[in-house]
Order: sequence, then structure tokens, then C-alpha cells
Amino acid sequence: MKPIISRENGLYKDLKNLAANSQARRKAGKTLLDGVHLCEAYLQQIGMPQLCVVADTAQTHPEVAAILLKCEAQQVLCISLPENLYQAISQVENGVGILFVILTPVPVLPEMIEHTSVALDGLQDPGNLGSLLRSAAAAGVRHVFCAPGTAFAWSPKVMRAGMGAHFLLNIYEQADLQSILSVARIPVLATSSHTQTTIYQANLKQAVIWLFGHEGQGVSPELMKMATQTVTIPQQAAIESLNVAASAAICLFEQVRQQLSV
Amino acid sequence: MKPIISRENGLYKDLKNLAANSQARRKAGKTLLDGVHLCEAYLQQIGMPQLCVVADTAQTHPEVAAILLKCEAQQVLCISLPENLYQAISQVENGVGILFVILTPVPVLPEMIEHTSVALDGLQDPGNLGSLLRSAAAAGVRHVFCAPGTAFAWSPKVMRAGMGAHFLLNIYEQADLQSILSVARIPVLATSSHTQTTIYQANLKQAVIWLFGHEGQGVSPELMKMATQTVTIPQQAAIESLNVAASAAICLFEQVRQQLSV
Repeated sequence: MKPIISRENGLYKDLKNLAANSQARRKAGKTLLDGVHLCEAYLQQIGMPQLCVVADTAQTHPEVAAILLKCEAQQVLCISLPENLYQAISQVENGVGILFVILTPVPVLPEMIEHTSVALDGLQDPGNLGSLLRSAAAAGVRHVFCAPGTAFAWSPKVMRAGMGAHFLLNIYEQADLQSILSVARIPVLATSSHTQTTIYQANLKQAVIWLFGHEGQGVSPELMKMATQTVTIPQQAAIESLNVAASAAICLFEQVRQQLSV
Repeated sequence: MKPIISRENGLYKDLKNLAANSQARRKAGKTLLDGVHLCEAYLQQIGMPQLCVVADTAQTHPEVAAILLKCEAQQVLCISLPENLYQAISQVENGVGILFVILTPVPVLPEMIEHTSVALDGLQDPGNLGSLLRSAAAAGVRHVFCAPGTAFAWSPKVMRAGMGAHFLLNIYEQADLQSILSVARIPVLATSSHTQTTIYQANLKQAVIWLFGHEGQGVSPELMKMATQTVTIPQQAAIESLNVAASAAICLFEQVRQQLSV
């Protein structure tokens, strides 16, 4: 454990810049995982971080101590910070003071998509994206393709809402959905209120690519043309529609139901 | 249309206080509906507001003009404000400048609960609550009971996320779930990861009361005891669990599916 006590320390200044600046994170290809839950999920699903940072006051916290032990056993650089220096880089209010710096995963596009996947066209709200990633991971989805205009999946807000789902999915940012969908060998399904076939009638026993869009405007017309089938969630009331993350959860778990054959 | 141009106008000062202060809204029993969509939904589902407020610059907007016409035909007091005065009371960034002041609905508790309902024990995130209300309305739910500790359903954030679902539901705030559930004549269902029966195996053709809890801690142990059945959403991956609003959407629409007999 290396204590850093000065704001002028070079490593601390780099860290503060990363924490404050999403451009800096993208440029460095790095991401911060803030809090015990995300750090534990990362260790369990992926492995060791580049750097582990703890607040002085958190070192005796049992879950933090356990994470530190694992990191130090693998020669991960661990640094401790006084409370005020730590708070200046943490995005979690009243959280337990531990964070990881990791390399943002950049998976290689699969040559062929055979597993159930999600394609997102301009989904904007970080909370919605995090919730959707969580549902996708829980439903056994493999790939998530995010078109430009979609919220940045590795932002702190999306990661908090995702609760570790990120580490169970292959997330492709700035994905060219036109070309990905055009070579898809499995059906591309989009929800629409202008269609008759319900998700309960559609054949979801097969792998499909689910296409979801912007909270207000939905999927763009150009991409909608690439859907091989549109399906609807039957609604009981005169209400505009479902929240997109709720809608995705319903679709993905109807597919789970059909695949369980119940 | 009554123009108000001074910050010192009494009506404007009252309005600004209501907009800024949730305590003031609760005390006055009033709520602000901000934006075209919520105002239109209110007119369609409930009726006339107490007061209609527009920004000068928005008066020629066709949807705003149509709302104004309806309100003035029913002698609703309509006031216009210069852009800077309007912005000081609006909570919507870059929105179209119209808002309603309404009396917050306070429905009378039903003597007997016969219709599918949702009971919320400490759900905290306004976005989650709004999304859940939207799913509930879309699934045909009648009553939503919110225990103390649950986010205030008529707050601006929850209303924005609810997209008008509020006006299709009976929402009971500060509800005593212990006494409500103890006299329920229909089953009370809670989700749990420690149970075998899946939502797909449970009988949801009947009306039920769904019990959902806090984002982190779930339903309190005391209330969990009042569930007549626990059910699980089968999950495919080593992930903590679903977001509560996603989980509720899956449960409510599995019930829709069973009731459609498909």
C-alpha cells in the first residue's frame, strides 16, 4: 500500500483528471469503478485492475480489506488517500471509499452473430442504459451494440445503474448498426405499437437481435427498415408507451420464458 | 390570458415558492405539471387544472395554443410570463413553456381490494418509481400503495418519468401497508431469489397485489411475512438481480400474458 498525501503528486493529478473528465477517460481508454460492489464484481468476472485506490478511513472496512488483500497478492498497485483527496475523485456520495482504475474493455466485433444480442440506437438516459444492461445480462444476452448517440456505457452513472452487468456482456460502442444488422444471420426484432403480432405470439425460442431506440423518438426509420419482424407489447391503458428499459426487460424475459418452455 | 411581468406579483411569488419547495407543494396539496405531454394527459384523463401558466415565447406553439384554448373555454385562469420569469419556475430544460398547477389527487382508500394492485415499500429512486407507475398503468393496474420512505409520487422527477401514468392510477401515499395487506382478499405476491416457484409457474390469471421494495434492501422482513406467495424471475447469469422497475415490468406483463391466455 502506497500512501499519497499531496494533491501535487503526479499519480493523484492523473487520477483526478480521469475522474473529472470523460474525454480524458476515453482518450486513455480507462474507466473508474467506484464502490465495493463494482470492484468485487470486476474481480469475480474479469480479474485484476490496473490500480486500486482506497480512502484512509475505509481501509479497515471488512469488504475493502478483502479486496485489498486480493489486489496486493497479485502485485496490483494500491494507493491510499486522505479522506478529502479521496472525495475529490469519487462520484459516489456516502459510499465506502474504494475504487479501481481499469482498462475499458473493447471487444472485437464478432464475425457472425449467433447469440441473442441487443442493438441500441440512441438510447440517451444513463439510468435506462444501466438498467437495460442489467436486464440483458440477467437474461443471458451475449452482445450489446451501441450506435453513436447512445449514452457512453462505461460512464460512472451507467456503471452504477448496471451493478456489474457490464462485466458479463460484450459491449461495442460507436457500433455501425447498419452494417452489423445487414450481415446478421438471426432475426432482428423491433417493438412497435403499429403492429399486430405480440411478443407472446412471436417465436422467441430462437436467438434474435433486439433493436431498441431513443426514449422519445424510438428507433430511426433507416434502422427500423432492417428489422425482420416488428412485435408489440399489448397494453391495457391509454398511455403513451412503456419506458424503454422496462420494455426491453419485458421482451428479454418473454424470450427467457419461451426458451425455458414454460 | 393575464400577463404577469413583475417578480413582485403575489401570484408569481406563490408560484415560485410552489415550484421551488416540495414542502410547500405538500402543504398546499398542489402539484405542478411541467410540459406539453403531462398537461395534455391531464386534460384527457382528469380535466381542468387550477391554473395554466405559459411562457410568452410558447404561446404560438401549436400544442400550447390548443391547450390554452381548452382551458380558457372552461374559464381556467391562464397567465403568461416573460421567458426569464417562466424559466425560474420550470423544471424542464429546453422544454416548451407550459405548466399546470393542479390539486394533488388524494384518493380514498378502497374498502376492499379486488383489482390487481402494487404495494411499494421504500422504493427510493424517482426514475424507478416513474417507470414502475408507467408499467403499472400500461398493464392495467388499478391501485398503487406507497409506504412511507417511498419517493413522493407527485414530485416533478417522478411525474416526468411517469409520462402521465399518474392520471390512470389511484396512488395512495404514506400508505400503511401492514393494515392494507392484512385485510387483502387477493393474494399478495413478492419476488425473492430464495424461492423455487417462477413467475411463469405462478397463477397470475387472478388479481394479485404485487409487493416491491427498496432498491438495495428489498421489502422489509415484517412486510415480507405478509406475502402469501414468493415468486422468482429465473435469471441466466451471475448478476446481483434486476433493477426493481425492470423486475416489476416483467412481473406485471407476465400477468398480462397469462390473462390474455396466450
